[in-house]
Amino acid sequence: MIPASSTVAIVGATGAVGREALAILQQRNHPPANIRAVASERSAGGTINYGGTHLPIHTLSVAAFEGVNISIFCTGAELSARWAREALNAGSHVIDNSSAFRLDPGVPLVIPEINGDLARSAGPPRLIANPNCSTILLLTALEPLRQRFGISRAVVSTYQAVSGAGAPAIDELLSQTRAVLEGHTPRPAVFHTPCAFNVFSHDSAVDPLSGVNGEERKMIDESAKIWRDTSIPITPTCIRVPVVRAHSASVALTLCSPASEADLFHALHAGKGLSIIDDRSENHFPTPLQAVGGDVVLVGRIRLDPSMPMHHHGQSRHVCLWLCGDQLRKGAALNALQIADLLHAIA
Amino acid sequence: MIPASSTVAIVGATGAVGREALAILQQRNHPPANIRAVASERSAGGTINYGGTHLPIHTLSVAAFEGVNISIFCTGAELSARWAREALNAGSHVIDNSSAFRLDPGVPLVIPEINGDLARSAGPPRLIANPNCSTILLLTALEPLRQRFGISRAVVSTYQAVSGAGAPAIDELLSQTRAVLEGHTPRPAVFHTPCAFNVFSHDSAVDPLSGVNGEERKMIDESAKIWRDTSIPITPTCIRVPVVRAHSASVALTLCSPASEADLFHALHAGKGLSIIDDRSENHFPTPLQAVGGDVVLVGRIRLDPSMPMHHHGQSRHVCLWLCGDQLRKGAALNALQIADLLHAIA
Repeated sequence: MIPASSTVAIVGATGAVGREALAILQQRNHPPANIRAVASERSAGGTINYGGTHLPIHTLSVAAFEGVNISIFCTGAELSARWAREALNAGSHVIDNSSAFRLDPGVPLVIPEINGDLARSAGPPRLIANPNCSTILLLTALEPLRQRFGISRAVVSTYQAVSGAGAPAIDELLSQTRAVLEGHTPRPAVFHTPCAFNVFSHDSAVDPLSGVNGEERKMIDESAKIWRDTSIPITPTCIRVPVVRAHSASVALTLCSPASEADLFHALHAGKGLSIIDDRSENHFPTPLQAVGGDVVLVGRIRLDPSMPMHHHGQSRHVCLWLCGDQLRKGAALNALQIADLLHAIA
Repeated sequence: MIPASSTVAIVGATGAVGREALAILQQRNHPPANIRAVASERSAGGTINYGGTHLPIHTLSVAAFEGVNISIFCTGAELSARWAREALNAGSHVIDNSSAFRLDPGVPLVIPEINGDLARSAGPPRLIANPNCSTILLLTALEPLRQRFGISRAVVSTYQAVSGAGAPAIDELLSQTRAVLEGHTPRPAVFHTPCAFNVFSHDSAVDPLSGVNGEERKMIDESAKIWRDTSIPITPTCIRVPVVRAHSASVALTLCSPASEADLFHALHAGKGLSIIDDRSENHFPTPLQAVGGDVVLVGRIRLDPSMPMHHHGQSRHVCLWLCGDQLRKGAALNALQIADLLHAIA
């Protein structure tokens, strides 16, 4: 855990991920005196509520990092690229939520349940990157199976909440839904496609050559780096659904060695950072609504692929599952703070 | 086409699929005098609007099929099982939308673009089954690729509209969404899980042994029958999304022989019953809202799997696509009427 005596800067404190990071620190009773809320000049002079204390908002500057032990950057890639090194130079560890450093060979990309060893350090200030939300949720759910059986391929289709596109996207979903219910035609603004009562391919840019969008590319590249294995093919299709918060994914896996259904449940039960909801008789499986506000990835629909050949004794290398997770918590702020915990494990 | 002189009975005329069948017949200017609207006793004595004509609603009985040439059953499996043979005995062709006869070895299961040859007949009255909506949409989109390259595996994740569960499900989605927007807690009734701003595993019963739900089982079994090939594994995960009407699916295919991206587009462009929407630079791909009311399956996100090994010349056996289609039209009523057209092709 981050010692109560450490000063933690939340950079981008007024954004969705920044607010979630503050909420988690407050739940952990981290003292308000040791929280530094940092934001762009737009929010300068204001305050932000932290469990009843009104924290002043510091403008992003070198001075903002004075005396800070850990900086959690909840900013976009441009601001992170410009300011993360400044924070490091000021003597602060940096955990960056943006994509700026994720594929930098010199910067560890960490999900504590998988490669937390890369974050443990008693040395000088470290820069560590936090993976993309969908990648964190997927890899956290798969890790117990990867450890036990190995993974030789994953086909993934996501059902992503609009909140991944920021607070204006949530406003758009709610106001557009209201308009549609009142009989009006939806007017897209944040997304270029109507989001109310609709589903659409992820809004990240699509590579003209490969047809792969940015979100899918992140899942492929970041998984390879986190797994330290570029040989495991991931086939992602990233889709937005009219859900406010929490992402879901349907996953068809090929394992390296065969598993029975009981083996799968056993491995997942013993896994870290996840929880199983899988009641076939009640048709009760994870939903994004259930995942909202939770710290774990919910996993269900755990089954052998009914169409692929079985090995002996009801074992198969082909298995399926369904997962839901709060992309602002485990998918972003919580994972970043868990990395911060590791930095201090031997500090 | 169905000759204007043929009398067509729509059995279950007041349900969602029945109403859609009437709408299509009306668009085709089939004369109201040759439409027989049939429904259960609940609707007896009423009328139903058919392009301005108020058709009397006949109660489901042997007498209702007198003089009928084609009966489109838009009823549930129980009513179909009881009444389809009665209609046949009365001298009417029967096209049944329910699951009652789909896997009956003596009853053809037909998607006209794929196995329409099974429906062409100058003989005595025929009973032909209409496949499940998700299966029709999936197989119509895949057929040009199956014809050209062969399919050796399909991994499918669906994004299914609530209307597949009937009109009360649509009411529940809309009223529950209104309630949530007004700050109330959703009260599920049709579905046992909140459907407003949520996503959940398909509501069909889950087989306790395999973990496969009814919708997934239909996709597996019906595809094998329609393709006349039980050796092609289909790995489905069927999920409901808060969309009123039109289903979507994310598909990862393994082809038998490799294809380039251009090959895929070429084959799909030449396909029947589908239309391509695939603009990478504008991030413009099919959505269920666009599919509503249309006769074709919309296909996009057509690409080679970026993670799987390539063959020479940018060819791969591993390809992905995304599809959306109106499950009440091509997924049900339209496909049934297209079968009726075939019955009359040599009548």
